[in-house]
Amino acid sequence: MIPVVSFVAWSGTGKTTYLEKLVAELKGRGLRVAVLKHDAHEFEVDKPGKDSWRFTQAGADVTIVASATHAAILENRPVSAEELAARVTGVDLILTEGYKHGPWPKVGVNRAATGKGLPLPAEECLAVVTDAPPDTNTPCFPLDDPAPMAEFLISRVLN
Amino acid sequence: MIPVVSFVAWSGTGKTTYLEKLVAELKGRGLRVAVLKHDAHEFEVDKPGKDSWRFTQAGADVTIVASATHAAILENRPVSAEELAARVTGVDLILTEGYKHGPWPKVGVNRAATGKGLPLPAEECLAVVTDAPPDTNTPCFPLDDPAPMAEFLISRVLN
Repeated sequence: MIPVVSFVAWSGTGKTTYLEKLVAELKGRGLRVAVLKHDAHEFEVDKPGKDSWRFTQAGADVTIVASATHAAILENRPVSAEELAARVTGVDLILTEGYKHGPWPKVGVNRAATGKGLPLPAEECLAVVTDAPPDTNTPCFPLDDPAPMAEFLISRVLN
Repeated sequence: MIPVVSFVAWSGTGKTTYLEKLVAELKGRGLRVAVLKHDAHEFEVDKPGKDSWRFTQAGADVTIVASATHAAILENRPVSAEELAARVTGVDLILTEGYKHGPWPKVGVNRAATGKGLPLPAEECLAVVTDAPPDTNTPCFPLDDPAPMAEFLISRVLN
């Protein structure tokens, strides 16, 4: 089983930027990483007129485009986050953005300026990333430097 | 094992258009279909600046974006066509476009106007789609109507 850790925060916290930097930190330490992002909007990675779009429009349940270097698998139907995570192979760690109510250990992310705090109690978090550490026994990490979190994940989640 | 059939042709034959119509025919008969397309070019389904693009740029080996209705799995590394096909679940049939040298049964597609003929001998094909039927015992199907091919696949491949 590949470990999964969910980074959860209210919108406006900057968790995408934080995760982007964290992925780079983990890669820099030689780890293979997958990111699973929940998008509440009707995102569209495909473009009208492209072959993949045409197959999807024609009714394909799954449309895959593959080259020698990369591949895109478009699931044109609902697939649960759990199933998507279970299908990932060949990485050391899966980070999710979102999935506050998912089954995975959570890292709460907070930016004081948003005034919203964490989206769940610090005590329910594996760790907290914040620029305003709460009074808690949960390990806290800086919002402006993902390196300590990378080390924490390696020592606590991967070992 | 989900059956896989590869549609192979020289470029300019119109096989994407044919497959698009074939998918619609199969869907109209209640089948669930996946399409796997080989793209020799460095296709890009993602867009600069999007969150998924940012994760990929940061080094994520796999980037997944999921909503309640669909999902996109971006493999930012080489994955073989065989592995991609093996991962597909919950469909009745996988059609590939391309993969002339792949391990799957092949349907050769030919348009007389291209002057190129089939990319492999008709005798090595499960079937031929053409507007100029060759002298062969291999079953031949019209290029302008995918319905007979849909029936053929249902009777010969799915039963």
